[in-house]
Amino acid sequence: MISCHSIVNLPEARKVAIFGGTHGNEMSGVTLVNLWINNGAEVQRSGLTVKPYITNPRAVEKCTRYVDTDLNRAFTTDNLSLPRIEDLPYEVRRAQEINETFGPKGSSDAYDVIVDLHNTTSNMGCTLILECSKDHFSLQMVNFIKQSIAPASCSVLLNEHPLLHYSTSRSVGKHPIGVEVGPQPQGVLRSDIFEAMRAVVNHGLDFIELFNGGMEFEPCTVDVYRVSGNMDYPRDKKGNITAMIHPNLQDSDWVPLNPGDPVFQTFDGRTINYEGESTVYPTFINEAAYYEKQQAFVITRKETLKANGIRASNI
Amino acid sequence: MISCHSIVNLPEARKVAIFGGTHGNEMSGVTLVNLWINNGAEVQRSGLTVKPYITNPRAVEKCTRYVDTDLNRAFTTDNLSLPRIEDLPYEVRRAQEINETFGPKGSSDAYDVIVDLHNTTSNMGCTLILECSKDHFSLQMVNFIKQSIAPASCSVLLNEHPLLHYSTSRSVGKHPIGVEVGPQPQGVLRSDIFEAMRAVVNHGLDFIELFNGGMEFEPCTVDVYRVSGNMDYPRDKKGNITAMIHPNLQDSDWVPLNPGDPVFQTFDGRTINYEGESTVYPTFINEAAYYEKQQAFVITRKETLKANGIRASNI
Repeated sequence: MISCHSIVNLPEARKVAIFGGTHGNEMSGVTLVNLWINNGAEVQRSGLTVKPYITNPRAVEKCTRYVDTDLNRAFTTDNLSLPRIEDLPYEVRRAQEINETFGPKGSSDAYDVIVDLHNTTSNMGCTLILECSKDHFSLQMVNFIKQSIAPASCSVLLNEHPLLHYSTSRSVGKHPIGVEVGPQPQGVLRSDIFEAMRAVVNHGLDFIELFNGGMEFEPCTVDVYRVSGNMDYPRDKKGNITAMIHPNLQDSDWVPLNPGDPVFQTFDGRTINYEGESTVYPTFINEAAYYEKQQAFVITRKETLKANGIRASNI
Repeated sequence: MISCHSIVNLPEARKVAIFGGTHGNEMSGVTLVNLWINNGAEVQRSGLTVKPYITNPRAVEKCTRYVDTDLNRAFTTDNLSLPRIEDLPYEVRRAQEINETFGPKGSSDAYDVIVDLHNTTSNMGCTLILECSKDHFSLQMVNFIKQSIAPASCSVLLNEHPLLHYSTSRSVGKHPIGVEVGPQPQGVLRSDIFEAMRAVVNHGLDFIELFNGGMEFEPCTVDVYRVSGNMDYPRDKKGNITAMIHPNLQDSDWVPLNPGDPVFQTFDGRTINYEGESTVYPTFINEAAYYEKQQAFVITRKETLKANGIRASNI
């Protein structure tokens, strides 16, 4: 039996946003959010305000990741405090507008939960992305979603690295949750990926409704993959890549990569092996949008987080 | 024994071009052609001039399909005969330049063979695209490539439809061969797709070298899929799609589609079945670039073409 002392009171979560089109060519989120803007019945829950929202409409219109700069890196303190003038990059202006509507970031007025919908060309399956290992509400939500969609698998990526963390659209909210589902090419809508994302969002909303309704969630553990580094492609002096992801590594997101395992295959057929000192778990392997970011894959390490039990404080 | 009468004499094929980057985000061709521009040893053959060439450098630089208009639809008689003025769409100017260098289209000065390298997000595997069922040289080349890469499979798409045929970059040459390999997301380079395309090109060049060297190629038959129609997504009045490719059809390029088989799944979960009157072979299923062309998939019918035996006329 769980002791009452392991349950902490947290404020209710009444304001929820579902972001799609933070990257305009990631079609599952764009399509789901547009669907729910036209008819919100599916995402309404008792006692919740749920706002589906297209964050980068110009990029959606052009079916491109972004227009001027990556919106999902634009929510920096610097950007959000710039004077609102016309000649700012489009996504910086959007970041300011989104921060005004759903934030301000870090304030008590901010939306309680922002779920941001993404697709990847990598074979990551259903992935939830957290930004803070101490956010017990989000950990409980992630645990609920994982259990709800089992036996289908759902990995959890924790981006809490001091240097590699970036300023996401969802970071405007108090509890930011990224949903990343793949593999899906940019500009393509696959029914399997669409339905997987849809199920994740619905389970997440169910969790919030249950939480607000007084359900206690017992202490639990959540296995996560914590971002620990990036690996770039081998490149020549001009910056052009000279090798591809090795066939053994391609599509092997979340599979242990050991020292000495092949990671790249050069255009002349040589194999380049992993030179790290311990086993890691690569992800975002061969993501289309990350060539320009000098990332062939993201390196993660596995760990288990403990979440406090939670209940809504007004109950 | 094959009778001498079934062998026809054809001119030698001395000038060969390999086009990459006709669509700037189809990375296998872009990468192979850039590789061969830097070091052409792999694609040189005795008695051949082989020119690897990036057809749409601005689109390659931006990693986008095209800048102003689809280059692979731009080689119309009208476009090629327009006065060369500055404010033409970029790809129309490129079409004129390419026609000058590798054509003129339809003239005796044109390159003998143009191999144009493409990727698709569809699960088409290795596909060769022909534009004319009477081009015995191309049919023999395709037959040679198919036999060389067996037991791996290589489908042949024949785009000879009076209305659906379009004016490709490769149509500037006397014997245009499209190479379409997938599935690969736009902007991604996969080693398996890269090596499959590379093998096809090398087998094609081997064929031309053997032909010029005097080898006789006996009459043969080639199974092809002839383009017979297009199927658009279901759409609402504003033109937005209201359904996705059905999971049964997704990734099932070249698989027989029978009347009554599911083709689409609406966002509210309904199935839409194929209403055609006979079995067809869909391809380019859920190709990213074809949403804007109102094509959910291309409909083909299977047939068997006969190719004359051929030998080089100067032998």
